[in-house]
Amino acid sequence: MSRFFTERLSSLEAYVPGEQPKDMKYIKLNTNESPFPPSPSVIEAAKEEAGRLQLYSDPECTPLVEKFAELYGIQKDRVIFSNGSDEVLNFAFMAFFDENRPAAFPDISYGFYPVFARLNRIAYEEIPLREDFSVNYKDYVGIGKNVVIANPNAPTGLSLTLTEVEEIVKSNPDNIVIIDEAYVDFGGVSAIPLTYKYGNLIVTGTFSKSRSLAGARLGFGVACPELIRDLNTIKYSTNPYNVNRMTMMAGYRALCDNGYYMDNCKTVMENREYTKHALRALGFTVTDSMANFLFAAHPRLDGEEYYSELRKRGILVRHFSKERIKQYNRITVGTREEMDALLRATEEIIKEKSK
Amino acid sequence: MSRFFTERLSSLEAYVPGEQPKDMKYIKLNTNESPFPPSPSVIEAAKEEAGRLQLYSDPECTPLVEKFAELYGIQKDRVIFSNGSDEVLNFAFMAFFDENRPAAFPDISYGFYPVFARLNRIAYEEIPLREDFSVNYKDYVGIGKNVVIANPNAPTGLSLTLTEVEEIVKSNPDNIVIIDEAYVDFGGVSAIPLTYKYGNLIVTGTFSKSRSLAGARLGFGVACPELIRDLNTIKYSTNPYNVNRMTMMAGYRALCDNGYYMDNCKTVMENREYTKHALRALGFTVTDSMANFLFAAHPRLDGEEYYSELRKRGILVRHFSKERIKQYNRITVGTREEMDALLRATEEIIKEKSK
Repeated sequence: MSRFFTERLSSLEAYVPGEQPKDMKYIKLNTNESPFPPSPSVIEAAKEEAGRLQLYSDPECTPLVEKFAELYGIQKDRVIFSNGSDEVLNFAFMAFFDENRPAAFPDISYGFYPVFARLNRIAYEEIPLREDFSVNYKDYVGIGKNVVIANPNAPTGLSLTLTEVEEIVKSNPDNIVIIDEAYVDFGGVSAIPLTYKYGNLIVTGTFSKSRSLAGARLGFGVACPELIRDLNTIKYSTNPYNVNRMTMMAGYRALCDNGYYMDNCKTVMENREYTKHALRALGFTVTDSMANFLFAAHPRLDGEEYYSELRKRGILVRHFSKERIKQYNRITVGTREEMDALLRATEEIIKEKSK
Repeated sequence: MSRFFTERLSSLEAYVPGEQPKDMKYIKLNTNESPFPPSPSVIEAAKEEAGRLQLYSDPECTPLVEKFAELYGIQKDRVIFSNGSDEVLNFAFMAFFDENRPAAFPDISYGFYPVFARLNRIAYEEIPLREDFSVNYKDYVGIGKNVVIANPNAPTGLSLTLTEVEEIVKSNPDNIVIIDEAYVDFGGVSAIPLTYKYGNLIVTGTFSKSRSLAGARLGFGVACPELIRDLNTIKYSTNPYNVNRMTMMAGYRALCDNGYYMDNCKTVMENREYTKHALRALGFTVTDSMANFLFAAHPRLDGEEYYSELRKRGILVRHFSKERIKQYNRITVGTREEMDALLRATEEIIKEKSK
């Protein structure tokens, strides 16, 4: 850090995104991207909007908001869009968290939550997952802190039930509860309907996974109109034109083509179950993931070694060095062909290891 | 604000973007957009990238950084790209401003500076422009605060010389000086070369004005490698994938087509001079703008009335209610046809007024 960097943020440790090596062509199973391209009308929309790029984007994202409200059956004043869901999560940390409302989230979860807490200089408690990596919802009941839970959780893929989520929200009426549903479209149940019942609930989501728009950057938050207004106050104090024209219309068209994306999710879920059973047959411990990734460890294979051996074979998965999960790898679910390539490489690695 | 909104930010007043009315088709001279569309290869790039949107964007913006470095004759570790220049400005406020390094900027300037200061809870001093709306650089010499100056300034269009900028930078070695060059391509002189001489200077810029990419959201900061690293620490703690794939390649192609954009800037400058002289002939006071807008007031025409009368005639300009400039309007320079429409409407308004 330079001598000009503020002491206020000297403890900041930036988030480390999944690697994007350029040395060769990899099978990318490390950043939970969709293996399917966007629908043709999304590409058409990007091209159309590109011809109008000299004009600012609509800060209110009008057509996108209208289509989203229609599809999700909510009012238009209950949603905000952002430059990826990281942005709306940070807006929520900025708007609602402080010394009186510190944060609580699982010890194993999305790596950005502690980063946002430190960035906004907010105290946080990391609550250990159970031994089996599940979230014990009772740990959050009446906790009196702002709660952030990814549901399904990453990198474990495990889910809370809607009843458990509701217990957390209901029992913390003076705190904000954020349910991060980045992976909900792969078999989870959304808490969006609960935002009508509870004025302290924010549900966030992204078009990066189930809607094949990771590279377009589009996230959203759903909550009661009052909280959405607060999030907009932050947005209009930070970056009013946060969603560019091309992304806005790409998102709109993706919602119009919802069937295409939901079919792709179904395929990913089928490939997930197929791969899970195959990995278990090879001796892996694999969580019952409800997301577009698997979380797996082998009793006779060091986690980092498995990662490196796969990498040598042109397959990227995500390894976390955190003590509690360092024997595990997070494996994005891709096409059947990609999963078969992963399984073949895995068999080979285990075979060599047993020699 | 909801009862959950943090007291830390209760004094926040969000920036108000220029209006984007949808009731009819206007000649839009209110948000300093380019009247020219992007070059054809930008549209091609957006379409190509749209087919790969399922993959995350490159957080390092590699091809864009390389092309920018080549065109501007700087090293690659001296530039950072952001989701519009508002984002990199906010990153700088987050990284370098605090209670020990408060902010100083002109009383009449880009409305986002005080918003960023309040958002980051930083004290700031607004230094009055001279009577003629020019910045007196001596006000900032040795001020011992972090300085933010738009050069050319908005909404006045007036410029400091490079020597004056250097005096400010040199005389505040323990503070950061940000020169916001959003409008520099319309006849100004960039301070980018000075970043080699001074480790406390950050120059920001945008592709929104001279490069017809307002709707794509692309801004940048140039500084010594140490400061760029600090800005990246904030970026990787906020939104590592802040620039989406389509915008990244649109920016790259725009730099490849630099001649097209610089020709457009020349046309805008010609139209600016033409309009300035015509407005002066109609009795307006008009600053000697070095930007893609004019700042004009008429002795017998109330500023807000002129704005409203133009609006009724289908022409949008920007009026600011701030006391000191409320007799003025900021008029974006468009095509010659748009300028002639503005002049015709203006003549009519003055004529009606004199009846």
